[in-house]
Amino acid sequence: MSVVAQLLDAYPKDLGKVDRDKLVACVEACIECAQACTACADADLSESDVAELTKCIRTCLDCADICETTGRVLSRHTAYDANVTRSVLEACATTCRASGDECHRHAPHHAHCRLCEEACRRCEHACRDLLDSLG
Amino acid sequence: MSVVAQLLDAYPKDLGKVDRDKLVACVEACIECAQACTACADADLSESDVAELTKCIRTCLDCADICETTGRVLSRHTAYDANVTRSVLEACATTCRASGDECHRHAPHHAHCRLCEEACRRCEHACRDLLDSLG
Amino acid sequence: MSVVAQLLDAYPKDLGKVDRDKLVACVEACIECAQACTACADADLSESDVAELTKCIRTCLDCADICETTGRVLSRHTAYDANVTRSVLEACATTCRASGDECHRHAPHHAHCRLCEEACRRCEHACRDLLDSLG
Amino acid sequence: MSVVAQLLDAYPKDLGKVDRDKLVACVEACIECAQACTACADADLSESDVAELTKCIRTCLDCADICETTGRVLSRHTAYDANVTRSVLEACATTCRASGDECHRHAPHHAHCRLCEEACRRCEHACRDLLDSLG
Repeated sequence: MSVVAQLLDAYPKDLGKVDRDKLVACVEACIECAQACTACADADLSESDVAELTKCIRTCLDCADICETTGRVLSRHTAYDANVTRSVLEACATTCRASGDECHRHAPHHAHCRLCEEACRRCEHACRDLLDSLG
Repeated sequence: MSVVAQLLDAYPKDLGKVDRDKLVACVEACIECAQACTACADADLSESDVAELTKCIRTCLDCADICETTGRVLSRHTAYDANVTRSVLEACATTCRASGDECHRHAPHHAHCRLCEEACRRCEHACRDLLDSLG
Repeated sequence: MSVVAQLLDAYPKDLGKVDRDKLVACVEACIECAQACTACADADLSESDVAELTKCIRTCLDCADICETTGRVLSRHTAYDANVTRSVLEACATTCRASGDECHRHAPHHAHCRLCEEACRRCEHACRDLLDSLG
Repeated sequence: MSVVAQLLDAYPKDLGKVDRDKLVACVEACIECAQACTACADADLSESDVAELTKCIRTCLDCADICETTGRVLSRHTAYDANVTRSVLEACATTCRASGDECHRHAPHHAHCRLCEEACRRCEHACRDLLDSLG
């Protein structure tokens, strides 16, 4: 069991009706995607065709910031606010879509873009899965 | 002119139809609100009635994270993506509303909650103003 | 192989003499510790003895911020600056020590503090290991 | 009086011997520098000579992250830990120096680098001033 899952189990109050597996999966996907986007933006900077990758860098920087924030919000359970959670998950899914689409364009040429696209797709799906389960 | 405004003027490409004044105001409000929420959550921890302030702390922590991310996304103009900007502004306004409402409950007792509520209201309005101006 | 490790392998330029295994371990430890500290601070807020946990909350909040920043700095390799890397690793190790020590005091009573202490110790050691390997 | 200063005055417990003016100045400088670095890195991405600016982008990204974290740590006063504060201020001053030096190289050509260099210098000095005052 991951540390994320263990800490969720150690939360001292009732978590309500949330799907624990989807919540854990979403936190883990946010964290993974944030790091992948940070690394991909940096790898872009070291490519010889960096001038073709400026949109990719910008989108990855946004995605890293939003995924980190989403992972933090989802790691808090005290005084749960459904409106905040939903709006943050929507923003995260939207940004992962944008970043995944942009990395997709460069995936044939750059392995980091292929890996980053995969992380963005996983995170987008994890956010959508969690949003759907919130009813 | 603030450093935020000066840097916006120094951006080398066309910014499109965005309302520069509303954009600057929103970045400044996000930054101010993020710091206020961080300070308010900490001040809550040092109050003798901290047990009554746990919802305030949680909401302020979320708001600090989302305002910082929103301030960053709005400080980037390369490869502007309207969907990302809108969804992040919606999440920020939603969270500022929640945080402002919670601080409002404690404003009669704690000066930091009154100050933080004011910063949250300013940021919520700045986000809504910018969203409206995006058409 | 983790996504962190895969992205490191996909970096297009020479990484210099850095120990790749220690670098990957440190990024992973930073990310894990940041999430654990965010979750532990929130779990503290939901404990009935929250008034006894305010130092733990504060230290965990600092540790989450510094671990996230360290994970980001270590995920970038373009134009490596040894002074920046060292000073950030020192700050991270120092903060993980403080947070681990404080969580240690509460570990007998709260499972989340025990888990968080373990994450802080792993991250402190990973930072020290990487610092030592930098020579 | 800035919102940063007002919130410091609203902190409910004793702040110890810290120099309030230097503390406020440092929080404000960190926040200003973080935003300037985020905006400068993005402006770099939109310059036609982006391939010459990759070191500047990387250093600005690090500096934005570290300045934000430093501004957060300095905005918290509960259970003050001198070792954490010092190590974070050292890391921030070191990174602002690196970022200011790199922006200095591009300041003759790019107004955003000139503005960002100024923000980095102010923040480095504010960190050093606060460190010195801590004794």
